[in-house]
Parts: sequence; C-alpha cells; structure tokens
Amino acid sequence: MSSPKPKIVVLGAGVAGLTTALELARTGLYDVSVIGKYLPGDYDIEYTSPWAGANWMSFVKDDEQLKTYDRMTFEEFTRLVKEQPEAGIWSQKCIQYVREEDLEKTSLLGGLLDPRPWFADLTPNFKRLSKDELPQEYSRGISYDSFCINLQIYLPWLVSQLLKLGVSVRSRTVSHISEAFKSHASGVPVQAVINCTGLMASKLGGVMDEKVIPGRGQTVLVRNHAPAMYSVSGTSDADDEMTYIMSRPGGGTILGGCYQLGNWNGVPDPNMAQRIIKRCLQICPQLEDEGKLDIIKHNVGLRPSRIGGPRVEKEKFEDGWVVHNYGAGGAGYQSSYGMAAHVVQLVAEALL
Amino acid sequence: MSSPKPKIVVLGAGVAGLTTALELARTGLYDVSVIGKYLPGDYDIEYTSPWAGANWMSFVKDDEQLKTYDRMTFEEFTRLVKEQPEAGIWSQKCIQYVREEDLEKTSLLGGLLDPRPWFADLTPNFKRLSKDELPQEYSRGISYDSFCINLQIYLPWLVSQLLKLGVSVRSRTVSHISEAFKSHASGVPVQAVINCTGLMASKLGGVMDEKVIPGRGQTVLVRNHAPAMYSVSGTSDADDEMTYIMSRPGGGTILGGCYQLGNWNGVPDPNMAQRIIKRCLQICPQLEDEGKLDIIKHNVGLRPSRIGGPRVEKEKFEDGWVVHNYGAGGAGYQSSYGMAAHVVQLVAEALL
Amino acid sequence: MSSPKPKIVVLGAGVAGLTTALELARTGLYDVSVIGKYLPGDYDIEYTSPWAGANWMSFVKDDEQLKTYDRMTFEEFTRLVKEQPEAGIWSQKCIQYVREEDLEKTSLLGGLLDPRPWFADLTPNFKRLSKDELPQEYSRGISYDSFCINLQIYLPWLVSQLLKLGVSVRSRTVSHISEAFKSHASGVPVQAVINCTGLMASKLGGVMDEKVIPGRGQTVLVRNHAPAMYSVSGTSDADDEMTYIMSRPGGGTILGGCYQLGNWNGVPDPNMAQRIIKRCLQICPQLEDEGKLDIIKHNVGLRPSRIGGPRVEKEKFEDGWVVHNYGAGGAGYQSSYGMAAHVVQLVAEALL
Amino acid sequence: MSSPKPKIVVLGAGVAGLTTALELARTGLYDVSVIGKYLPGDYDIEYTSPWAGANWMSFVKDDEQLKTYDRMTFEEFTRLVKEQPEAGIWSQKCIQYVREEDLEKTSLLGGLLDPRPWFADLTPNFKRLSKDELPQEYSRGISYDSFCINLQIYLPWLVSQLLKLGVSVRSRTVSHISEAFKSHASGVPVQAVINCTGLMASKLGGVMDEKVIPGRGQTVLVRNHAPAMYSVSGTSDADDEMTYIMSRPGGGTILGGCYQLGNWNGVPDPNMAQRIIKRCLQICPQLEDEGKLDIIKHNVGLRPSRIGGPRVEKEKFEDGWVVHNYGAGGAGYQSSYGMAAHVVQLVAEALL
Repeated sequence: MSSPKPKIVVLGAGVAGLTTALELARTGLYDVSVIGKYLPGDYDIEYTSPWAGANWMSFVKDDEQLKTYDRMTFEEFTRLVKEQPEAGIWSQKCIQYVREEDLEKTSLLGGLLDPRPWFADLTPNFKRLSKDELPQEYSRGISYDSFCINLQIYLPWLVSQLLKLGVSVRSRTVSHISEAFKSHASGVPVQAVINCTGLMASKLGGVMDEKVIPGRGQTVLVRNHAPAMYSVSGTSDADDEMTYIMSRPGGGTILGGCYQLGNWNGVPDPNMAQRIIKRCLQICPQLEDEGKLDIIKHNVGLRPSRIGGPRVEKEKFEDGWVVHNYGAGGAGYQSSYGMAAHVVQLVAEALL
Repeated sequence: MSSPKPKIVVLGAGVAGLTTALELARTGLYDVSVIGKYLPGDYDIEYTSPWAGANWMSFVKDDEQLKTYDRMTFEEFTRLVKEQPEAGIWSQKCIQYVREEDLEKTSLLGGLLDPRPWFADLTPNFKRLSKDELPQEYSRGISYDSFCINLQIYLPWLVSQLLKLGVSVRSRTVSHISEAFKSHASGVPVQAVINCTGLMASKLGGVMDEKVIPGRGQTVLVRNHAPAMYSVSGTSDADDEMTYIMSRPGGGTILGGCYQLGNWNGVPDPNMAQRIIKRCLQICPQLEDEGKLDIIKHNVGLRPSRIGGPRVEKEKFEDGWVVHNYGAGGAGYQSSYGMAAHVVQLVAEALL
Repeated sequence: MSSPKPKIVVLGAGVAGLTTALELARTGLYDVSVIGKYLPGDYDIEYTSPWAGANWMSFVKDDEQLKTYDRMTFEEFTRLVKEQPEAGIWSQKCIQYVREEDLEKTSLLGGLLDPRPWFADLTPNFKRLSKDELPQEYSRGISYDSFCINLQIYLPWLVSQLLKLGVSVRSRTVSHISEAFKSHASGVPVQAVINCTGLMASKLGGVMDEKVIPGRGQTVLVRNHAPAMYSVSGTSDADDEMTYIMSRPGGGTILGGCYQLGNWNGVPDPNMAQRIIKRCLQICPQLEDEGKLDIIKHNVGLRPSRIGGPRVEKEKFEDGWVVHNYGAGGAGYQSSYGMAAHVVQLVAEALL
Repeated sequence: MSSPKPKIVVLGAGVAGLTTALELARTGLYDVSVIGKYLPGDYDIEYTSPWAGANWMSFVKDDEQLKTYDRMTFEEFTRLVKEQPEAGIWSQKCIQYVREEDLEKTSLLGGLLDPRPWFADLTPNFKRLSKDELPQEYSRGISYDSFCINLQIYLPWLVSQLLKLGVSVRSRTVSHISEAFKSHASGVPVQAVINCTGLMASKLGGVMDEKVIPGRGQTVLVRNHAPAMYSVSGTSDADDEMTYIMSRPGGGTILGGCYQLGNWNGVPDPNMAQRIIKRCLQICPQLEDEGKLDIIKHNVGLRPSRIGGPRVEKEKFEDGWVVHNYGAGGAGYQSSYGMAAHVVQLVAEALL
C-alpha cells in the first residue's frame, strides 16, 4: 500500500500561483489545492494578473537566475503556441526602439537598452534594425519574434488545466500564512504552502515583506490592431512613464504605460491616458482604423515589485514549509514557468 | 476542386454568440468569425453574460420550443460534466421551494411553481420534497440534480474552443447590422450574419427591436459554499425581487436576486444587497462559515428580456441573411445549446 | 390667534426641488420640508443636477411659457451675480456658431439656430457675429452676455439658503407619491406635495409618467479655462452629439457633449470623450495651457427630458394636492426660477 | 500711496486649505488665492475632506498645542451654529463608551479613553454616564454637547465665503511646491505659499514628507437618523476597526469605521461594511426605521496621518516662505480653525 501524496496549498491565484500549481500537479507527486482572495474573472486592484499586458519581452540584464526564468518560459510558450492554441498565446514580432538620451541609462528595465541582449540567440529572427527600418527619432533598435498573451483567455485556461487534473481552486482569504496550512480542499493540514501572494506579500501576516512595493501601471485597451509589439526606451513626458503596444490574440490591443514605484492609486489618471494614446500613435500610426482609435477601457494594475528582485526560496515555519514565489514585478508572465520550475525543485528538496 | 465554405459572422460574444459560433464551426460547413463589442474577460453593463449566475433551472411552463432549447442544453451540459471538466460546469443538487401565497401566481417564471414540471423525467433524482424535508414556511418543494456554471471559466473556455477550431474572435463595434456583413476576419463579405446582440438588439441599427427590454438582476458574490442550489417562488420584500443561491465550481457562490423589467440602472443598490443577504441566509443558514459571510463583490446585470419570448428566426436583408438569436432573458445559459442548434438549422435552410 | 401655515413637502432635491422650496419658503406663507433620495454633495446616475454644466443658454423657439421661465431665471441670475457672488454664478460671454448644414434643422434645441433669438433684447451686448469674428467653417453666429453656474457651489448654496430659513432638507426615499404626504419634518400630514422628481417621475408610484425619458449627456471636466462659453449647432460625428464649452466660476471648465434620448447608460464612453475633446479644441484652441489639457473627470448625466415639454401643473390626489414640476430636459438650471414661480402660483391657487 | 498687500497662495482646497485661506483673507492684510488639484464637489481618493464624517470629538490626550487647536475650533463652531446656520454645522449630543479591555490602551486616539478629558469644562453638559445610562457591556462612558458637520454643505460654504471676499479658488495641479509660487490668480509671484496638501505632502516635490501616511477610514452613509453621536473605545472585530455614529444636519448619518495606517486601498471592503453596520446597530438600535437601514453609499477616505503629529511651521524656500499646515489625521475638521490661526500667526511673523 502506497503512502498518500504530500499535500500542498498554493496561496494566490494570479499567474504565479496558477502556473506553480499546474507544474506541481503535473509532476503527479502532490495533492495540490489553490486558494486565492480573487480568482481569474475577478477584477480588484489587489489582484494584479488580470490587469497585465501581457507578453514576453525580457528586460533582464545580467542576472543568470532571471535569464533562466525567462528562457524556460519562452520555451514553454513556444510549445503552447504550437500545441495548444486554445491557451490564448500567440507569436508576434517585437520591435524595441532606443532613444539617444536613454543610451546610458541604468534602470529597472536596463535589459531593454542592450543592443544585443542575452536572448538574441533564443528568439527567432532576432536582428538589429537598419537605418532604413529605424524611425529617425531613435538611435537604434532591435526586432525578434516573441509572444503576446491574451490573459482574459490564458488565466481561465490555467484554471481549466487545473480542473482537468482534479486540482481544487477556491476563493478564500487568509490574514496570516499559517491559516493557509489548514486550507486544503481535503480539510487535512498540509506539509507545504507555496506563497504566491504577489503585492499582498507586503501585508500578509507571517510574511510582511517590506521590500514588496507596487509598480503602478496604467494602460488603454483598444479594439484596434497593431502589426507588431513595440516598446521605446523612454519618454519625454515623465521618467516613470513608458511606451509600449501589444496586440492580444483576439482581445484587443494594450497601449502602455508607466512604472510608478510606490504608487497605490487604482484609478486611471485621465491625463496619463491622453499621453499614452499620443505616444503610441506616434510610434504606430497605423493603429488607427479610418482615423479612429476605438477604446474599450482604461486600466490600472499594481505590479508586485520587490527591491532586490523576486523571492523564490523555502522557509521553515512552525506549521511546515513555505516556498515563496513572489515579487516578479513586470515579469510575472514572462518568467512564470521558470519560477514555477524553481518552486517544484525547492518543494522536492523540502518534502521528498 | 471544392468551392469555399460559406462565410458567416456571429455578432455578439456573450453565451449566445459563442455557443452558436461553436455549433456552427463544429459542423465543418462554414467559415465563422465572431465579433463583439465586448469579449469574455470584459465587464460592461451592456454585456450581460459575465454578470450571470449561472445554472440550469428551467422556468418554462408550456412552450414546447423553449422546452426543447432547455432539454438540448441539459443534455450537452451532462456530456460536458462527464467529458470536459475543464469547461467549468458541475453537477449540483437543486432545491426549489414554493410559498403558499405564490401557488396561484402566473409570472414570467411560472414554470418554477409547477409541482411536477416538464423536466421531472429529464433531471436525475427528481422528487417532491416531503413534509420532513420542507421548511415550515413553504407549501411545497422539489429537488433534482442539475448544473451550475462558473462562467468566469466557461465563457473563456468557449473562446478557447473556437480558437482551437481556428475561428477568429475579435472585438469590434457596429452601429448597424449591415456593417457586420463586412466584418469577417478574412475581409470578404459574408453570406449570413447571426445576430446574438442580446439587450443591444434594442439599439442596433437595422434591428431596433422594441420588444427587447432589460430584466435587471442584482447579486452578491460570496466566497462561502452552499451545499445545493436553492430558489424560492417569491419574497415579501418586493414583487420584482427573488431569492436564489448557486455555488459555482471553484468560483464562489452567487446570492440573488431580482428581475426588474425596464430598469437600466447598472449600479448595485446597497439596500437590495442587504435584503438579498438576509433572505439567502434564511433559506441556507449553513452558508456562513463560523458565523461569517465573505463577500467578494456586488454585481448587476441586465438580462436581455424580450416581450413574447426569444427571437430565433431568419430574415433576408439586402446584404444577405440575418439569423436572429437573442432575447433569452434569464435563460441565456440554460437554453444556449438548444437555441444554437436552432440557428444551425436555419442557417442550413438559408445557405445550403 | 393665527392659524398655522399650510404644510408642504417638496419631493426631490435637484435644482428644481431646491429652487421651488426656496421660492415657496420666501413667500413666508408655508411650512416647507424638502426630501430627496439624494442631496447636494451626492453623486448618483438617478440624480441629474450635479452632473449638469450648467449655464444660461436658452434654446426655446416659440413657446411663450418656456420663454417666461427662462426670462425670469435670467433676471434672478442677474440679481444673484450682483448681490450674492457667494452663490457660485458668474457672468460670461456666450458665443454660438451655426453650421451651414444645420441652418434648416428643426430640433429639440431649435432655438439655438435662430439668427435673432427671442432673448436678443434680454441679454446684454447681444450681437450677430461679423465675418471677421466668425471662423470660416460656420455660416453665422451670435454672442451675448450670459451666466455660468458652478453647481458644486450653487446646489449646496441653495441648501444653505433653505437652512437659513429653517427649512428641513432630508434624505428620504419614497416609492409612491402618497408617501411624500407623510414625510414632512414635523411628522404632520401635508396639504400639498411638489413633485420635482425629474427623470424618476417615470418610475414613481402614482405618477409613472411615460413621457419622461433620459437625455443622456456626457462631458469632460478640465482644469483649463476658456475665455467665453461656446456652442455649435451640430457635429459631423453623430446626430446626437453636440459641442459646447463653459467655464465655471472657480470650478474648471465643462466640455460637452451629447443629447442621447432614451439612453440610460451611466458610464462615460471613452471614445465619445475623445471626440468631445477634439471638437472643443477645434472651436477653442486657447483652452490648452502650454499645449496641455488637464482633465479632472469624465461625467455622465441623464437629463430629465419629457416628450411635449416640462410638466408644471396641479393635480388632486386622495391625500391632497400635487403640484408637478419636472421634465425640463437640458433647461433645468436656466428655467429654474421661472418654473418655481409658476409652482408658487399654482400652490396659492390650490391652498389659499 | 499704500503699498500693495502681500500675495499668498494656499495650496490645497480641503478643510485645512479653505479654512486657512478664509482666516488669512479675513485679516484683510493679504491678497490670497487658493489652488487645489480637487475642489469641493469633487470626489477622489487623493482628496480626503469630502470623505470625512465629520464632527468635533477631540481625542487629544496631553499635547497642549493640539488642545489649543481643538479648543479654538470648538469656539468657532459654537459661533457658527448660533450665527450662521447655513454653514451646515449643528449641535449634537456626543456619547462615548469605553470597554473594559480598552481601559489601559494607549493609542492614537488615547484621549477617547479619559474619564475626564481635557475638554470637560469646554463642552456644555459634560458628564460621566451613570450605571443606569451605561449599556452593560461598557465599563464607563461620558456625554457632552458637541458638533456635527454636514461637509457636503460646509465645504462649499467655505468656498462661498471666499468668493464673497473676492478670493480666487481654482483647480490647478502642481508637482513641485515651487510651482505654487507662480500660481496666484493675479499672475504675480507670491511671497508665501501655505502648504495644505494633506496626504499628498508625501508626494509633493520639495516636501516629500515620509512621515505622512494614510489612515484609511471606511464608512457607510445611511438615510436614517441617530439621536446622538456615539463612539466606542474599540471593537472585537479588529484592532484597526472602530465604531462611531454621527448624524449630519440634513445629510444622513455616517456609520464608521476604521483607522488603517498605511493602507491606500480606495475601494470599500464589502465585509468591513457588514461589520460596521452590525456594530453600529448594536450601540444604537433605534437607527433603524421600521426595522430598516436605508444605505446611501459606501465610502472610503484616507486620513492624512503624520507620525509625530501635524506639521504647522514655516520654512524658507528659494522662492519665498512656505508655511506648512498638514498632517491632522482624523482631526482635520475639529482642529481646523486653531491650525489656521497658527498659520496666520506664522505668516505674520514671516511677511509683516
């Protein structure tokens, strides 16, 4: 008679929690339950994943661990596009422009400035833009094939995959991480909790990670279509504003944006919205159909930024093991499978 | 050399539009595109499907056509629960109570009062409640096995199925139905448009159906779990208020509700919310965990009601055929596959 | 010993209700109470007055009664600007342009097209614009001195005046007009109710006026200042859209707008917002400070339109007299004192 | 020939800014302009004053300066109630209960626990509650006559008073305090800026006061009336929740609340709302009319708390003097005239 599988609760149902649960369940070694204050289909400022773009556009500069996260995710996205189109991911060309004045910048998103970034050999059709291809206001640029995710399809699809594997996904609130140990669908206390609480790791009892702060992002979702994904290295409007465009497969186009550290305001700023629209039309005038932009919604999301980078590590609590997986900032989707794989390894070390 | 498949645009991406597109695409006979002002994952008061409960609880009394719609849908839900758990539907016991004062009512929802409704032989474990099983405040009641749908999973799942079949699903707005004929993903004019615009059929150029009016519903979404689905025949609070409970598979529990004809107000009424909570706790006190209800959100949706019942019929326009499929009121989910099948038949008559 | 004053309840605390209560109280003949579902400072889509522009820009064409309403209000505004600047009204130049294609239109706002409207002798500095003063895209235009109202000051100021006179103003909801007879602050049944329920007259028990429908208006409130008030006779964007600008004394500038009959949608349409901004900048480019528009908020209000015009008349109910005063559509502010004076006369006929 | 008056800009149009501007203008010595990102009548989570209760219920324990602020304000409120009822303030009995378990607490609101607080001789009819008057669940209590403010009337009334005195009040945004020196209505640079930016002092360039953090408060505004104002020393629901009731003159009743330091969430928590309602009905069951609570709105405001207490002091900048007046936390209204008087004194020291 075999002993029962170790029981695990994944706390948090954003992209980190759902991907981690999926990778843990796929091993066949664990009996996994997911609980989250919010679930796919819910919208709340505390729940970041549904407000994301999202795409794969790595901005890692030197960190090998982060490169691994992004590389593994790129590989899984490659597989999904080929084998499971119903997941809501598609392949799209990505074009990145760098402005003269940003050439020497060192920022959070420093990897974006690299003339030959680490992923040059990973992404198909990578090239530096020639003079002809480069609008005159930029100093240089690159293009490559990458992925855009329609998260309105992808997040529920992750839940679907979990349901298919018999994993329970429920809405529950906990105020202290110790409560999560008692929140498995079976009612039995678990051996490990995976902490995928994102921004809320800053408020969760037993964790209260002060390094976690919001990286506020604002976007405009439009019905128009862009021929590629775009990003620019900076703006002349404000240091914490950005310009990017991504067309979701069947879900409109996201115009961004900003990265406002420490700003918790969940309401779209109507003036920033005007600036975003103006900047995006500058880099992609063909967005407009017959001279018109067709706006669906103005959005705000708070990226779960963490000073010093994401936290993926195990920690022993009185009730059992906690494996942390949070703090990915703006890289939540593009690092999701890599971070989940890291968690799977840490769980194995802890429980097996 | 075979001639190309007839091209069809489905206008509207609620449950009616997506189900119809799926059934049309599954025939393999047509090249289908879906366009909608809003798509699964969007929330807007003009887009009803994401605000629904939803479940299968037929309130048809005598209409044979409507019974057919509901029966066919029951059968497809039965299949989905067994074969595709990832769709977000599950089987749940349904309990319906009738109050003394409602026994002689004839209402929109008249079928709910029937001591032996038409589906008594369709639904597993159908029975009339015995005195012992019936709370003393009710005159009679029934119970049977039915389905609850977590539409936060189910609607995106429908899109996923379409993506898998290569059907384009895009966000587009049209102000006149003739524009839809030019909105196929291929850019080619189509032979038929399926009008699944729901409540907006009352405003759509070329349709402007004045029989379509909102049937406002307000609900409270809670994290607590109910052991069964419940409904009661009436309330003492107001004639247009109702009481019902349904626990979504992995998505919280919906407490309802009301059916306010002609009311377009999209904002939750805080006082109605209190009445709904009170009434639901009366019929299902075990909802509370440790004496607490855990509210996720207050919701309002406008059911696409139609005086005289839903409209499923074909109409010849200058640009080609329009097959209408709208006006299901509160039966949108539970009649979806039956109505879609009817459309498939009408399309075949028109195009083949 | 004198007999007590007749008691009156004013139902509704929008500009109509508050002005009427003030004029009734000023007679010294009545003991007035005001009740409203919402009061100044509240914002709800059912409560129109706080969403208004507002200004005096009469669009009456031939109706003598309506001219009287607007004239009397113009005279009271003239007095207020001079004697009570704290009320939040100021004098501002008003410029109205007419497009070639609108010259022959007959619309709701037909008076706007008149080359010499009825108020030419009422408003100071009235003149037709010369060729030099007229932008080339217009066929003709007029200008005159009128008033703009900062209703964020003016509505509370009306309440203040009532408090000063000892009039009770309370938030109460009634579902039938007969309840209002029992809602006087004294607890004593009243002899008359003044029905100032605006759009809600379409839903109020005992009234249910089917001629009352929403005239949806959407505006953008900006911090920038305009040198004058502007209006244009039409737009090329849509038949139910409009263009107007008014700078509130100390409260930003309203950019409008639209007049969508029968549309109850309380959510700002982001695309209409873009069109409004574009059109307003066309007629008043100097709105922008250093090339920037500074948006405070996007607003929607539902004007209480009434087919056939406003209803000011008395009606005998079982509980006493009802004097109706509703249905002013977009003229609520500019006709307020005239309509209130009419009510005062009807109340005297009924009660004295 | 007299020299012109010194020019001053008051930055911020909450209760602090408006009261300070009024007191400065009343001296007749200065030419004052007020600018604010938001003005009375606007609602935004960055603009706290419109979300307040508000009343006079001093919670000062030992600080003499703070006592002075509250005392001076009490005296002005006393005058206003008598002489200017149109301001929207009224006298109301205040009842404060202390629970056994809170007797030894030392908190932000420590003064609330004092059996004979500093204002015992200031407030009319002060007394300790006798055993008979004290509900059995409390250890002790006090009652006295104090004030409740209907800020939906009072804030616009403050603007009215400024308009009457010819003070310009405009909506303007500044990102650095130095911009305020150039924002006088006259266009002329000013000698002094009064910094009344409240919570936004934490983000304002040139100030960036890290001691300023939000003290999140959530309330329920109901139409029902309470016979007195109430507060209780603590709750068993959570350490950062509170219980208080205040009936605004003609503006409904506020049920509170909480004081959540560091929480920026502007959305009402539906579960906290239920707890607030339950607790308030416990201390004041007579709130319900015929067993019903009639909810107008759920509100959230972020009190401008400051570690170490409010900041009223002058500071020399390159452009001229800044007099700071912010950080009053939950005492913004009840200390407003005292703090304004302090500013008047500091301005005189700086400019005269």
